[in-house]
Amino acid sequence: MAAKKKQKPIVGNMLIAQSGGPTVVINQSLVGAVLEAKKHGEIKQVYGALHGIQGILNEEFVNLGRESKANLEKVAVTPSSALGSVRKKPTSEDCAEIFKVLQKYDIRYFFYIGGNDSAETTHIINEEAKKNKYEFRCFHICKTIDNDLRENDHTPGFGSSAKFVASAFMGDNLDNRALAGVKINIIMGRHAGFLTAASALARVYPDDGPHLIYLPEVAFSIPKFIKDVKAVHAKYGRCVVAVSEGISDSKGTAIIAKMSASKEVDSHGNVQLSGTGALGDILANEIKAKTKITRVRADTFGYLQRSFPGLWSEADAKEARAVGTQAVRCAVKEFSSGSIAIRRAPGKAYKVTYKRVPLKNVSKDTQHMPAKFINKDGNDVTQAFIDYARPIVGKLPEIGRLKNIEVKKK
Amino acid sequence: MAAKKKQKPIVGNMLIAQSGGPTVVINQSLVGAVLEAKKHGEIKQVYGALHGIQGILNEEFVNLGRESKANLEKVAVTPSSALGSVRKKPTSEDCAEIFKVLQKYDIRYFFYIGGNDSAETTHIINEEAKKNKYEFRCFHICKTIDNDLRENDHTPGFGSSAKFVASAFMGDNLDNRALAGVKINIIMGRHAGFLTAASALARVYPDDGPHLIYLPEVAFSIPKFIKDVKAVHAKYGRCVVAVSEGISDSKGTAIIAKMSASKEVDSHGNVQLSGTGALGDILANEIKAKTKITRVRADTFGYLQRSFPGLWSEADAKEARAVGTQAVRCAVKEFSSGSIAIRRAPGKAYKVTYKRVPLKNVSKDTQHMPAKFINKDGNDVTQAFIDYARPIVGKLPEIGRLKNIEVKKK
Repeated sequence: MAAKKKQKPIVGNMLIAQSGGPTVVINQSLVGAVLEAKKHGEIKQVYGALHGIQGILNEEFVNLGRESKANLEKVAVTPSSALGSVRKKPTSEDCAEIFKVLQKYDIRYFFYIGGNDSAETTHIINEEAKKNKYEFRCFHICKTIDNDLRENDHTPGFGSSAKFVASAFMGDNLDNRALAGVKINIIMGRHAGFLTAASALARVYPDDGPHLIYLPEVAFSIPKFIKDVKAVHAKYGRCVVAVSEGISDSKGTAIIAKMSASKEVDSHGNVQLSGTGALGDILANEIKAKTKITRVRADTFGYLQRSFPGLWSEADAKEARAVGTQAVRCAVKEFSSGSIAIRRAPGKAYKVTYKRVPLKNVSKDTQHMPAKFINKDGNDVTQAFIDYARPIVGKLPEIGRLKNIEVKKK
Repeated sequence: MAAKKKQKPIVGNMLIAQSGGPTVVINQSLVGAVLEAKKHGEIKQVYGALHGIQGILNEEFVNLGRESKANLEKVAVTPSSALGSVRKKPTSEDCAEIFKVLQKYDIRYFFYIGGNDSAETTHIINEEAKKNKYEFRCFHICKTIDNDLRENDHTPGFGSSAKFVASAFMGDNLDNRALAGVKINIIMGRHAGFLTAASALARVYPDDGPHLIYLPEVAFSIPKFIKDVKAVHAKYGRCVVAVSEGISDSKGTAIIAKMSASKEVDSHGNVQLSGTGALGDILANEIKAKTKITRVRADTFGYLQRSFPGLWSEADAKEARAVGTQAVRCAVKEFSSGSIAIRRAPGKAYKVTYKRVPLKNVSKDTQHMPAKFINKDGNDVTQAFIDYARPIVGKLPEIGRLKNIEVKKK
């Protein structure tokens, strides 16, 4: 991202914080921003707030400028928000209070690493500063494993989580091949199916699972699901299924809520199916009850998808670093506010560019899997999705298979 | 293992098969055995049976001797039984039938890779051969992520699964540190707690989780569990818990069966808590109901623990290869039957030796976590366990942490 315009320099302190669900590469963005900040004389102290805006309200700051580069580089390859995180939507009183704290510490550069909710918080804080005519640079740094931020081709965190999911399906497909049956895996992503779709990258051989993929973007029907599973099982003698935690029926009601709700009618009040393993268990039980398949298992990948250490996509790590670096550079030189979006450059080779976009463009609303990424039958992805996701995820483990040279029966 | 005695050579074909739950390194044993077999002129054809003894009964054999070394090496680093697996305890009719098939194909060397059940099957087949005075070499090759085979210091498969579990807890601990609450993770191992205990290797800093570890070897009590969690939460403001899927009460009744059973008293019959996610959900709900802690989550690691590709312990991979190699060598040169056990050599440096033991010594009964590995309070492991497990697991991801240099409040 070449500097296109110069703006009047502001001298003051910088504050950075992390928000929302952790990712494997969220500290790359933090470290990118901190190391870049140290290159600019306009930025005096580099502070971090612990646990996002909660740390600002509590004035719990740490001095990131005094961290050694070596330690920062160790933190960069460590998963989960090193500054701590928070899930908090600030009230208008909170925003006024946050703004007071920023003034008190002479914060002139503010960076908030997070998803669409964090972008909205950043936007509100920026509006508060504007209203008060406070000279201020205010940036959002994108991250989300859900891959659902507008303006972005993809978002930091997604590639590494997708690599975990694809790797996990590679192993689980082999497990299912060794001991046949139906295996259902529940994947994160309540509204966007990108992470569930990434399971498709696990396929190496034509008979490899996942054989079916159910996304929140497609209305889910239990009878259709059972029909699909039976067909795959008849063909391969086994079936591996990827299911988004957010699958919903044609009215938009989440399957997990629907199936639990129907049980809650029972006045005894002792049915609790809203836990993390519940959706997998519900679907497995449906297969057991409505087919003759006996070996049916379900796993919910859970938090491992967003925080497994030592396993990341190289492209993701690099891009997460870059959006942190670019946000600081842009704040110092070019714009008073915004978010750094990742765009894909046209052409065959995978290449990305970084573009500053207005805060409101990435806040609140999110984006979903486009129709071109979903197959007609609504139970798989298309080649277009594979082509889109493969370079973001990068190298996957190599899977060997015996040639199974037949021995003639005697 | 130096050859101690020479036995009369037998010339004939070899058959190898895999059984029980897959592991990440089970193909190392297969490849070790096949490559060793090719060095011995006594062994003519090297066959593999698909899906364990089921493949013998069906005469579904593949010619492993004709696989290229390059392809075998690819298979060696691929998780999950490449020949397919089976969970089948043969009847006496099956055994007679298996023996007939072995004779028909002139199988003089038989190797069965598996746990204690597979050792028993191997033992029964060997007894059948003896009864029929059939000249035969019959070996069990150990594997189990449960680490519960007698005669063994540890078993192939455990180290890699333990590495997955420890890595997962490292990430999950960081996740819990970023967004505080109680996090419960359910680990495989129905009767032996070794794999659950391996979560302790995740600890790097004094406040790192898992803060509590519940093993099947210790009677589990819900009130004690709640008391423990409350104490940790009061100390750290968060709590990460490792729970074996096989935890049982003082009478030996599995908690999952007990809690489900108590709900089944409800005559409506619509409560299904026996799925894979159920135990975590039950424990999380207990915490929610009986403490004031609001953020409580549970994950069940599931099959990922035994089949995640690209992630293995170097020692485990090496030892899994060695038990395959040694079994063939031993069968050709030394003993007519047995199992290759892994022993730890005395001394500070980690070193193992391989010893042939009689089949009956590793079949049927299993071993559990010894008392010296469990803390007095029954909710953690001891340093002795850490010292035991660390070299088996090997290198874990490096975890960085900010120094959190405080900024004085204004």
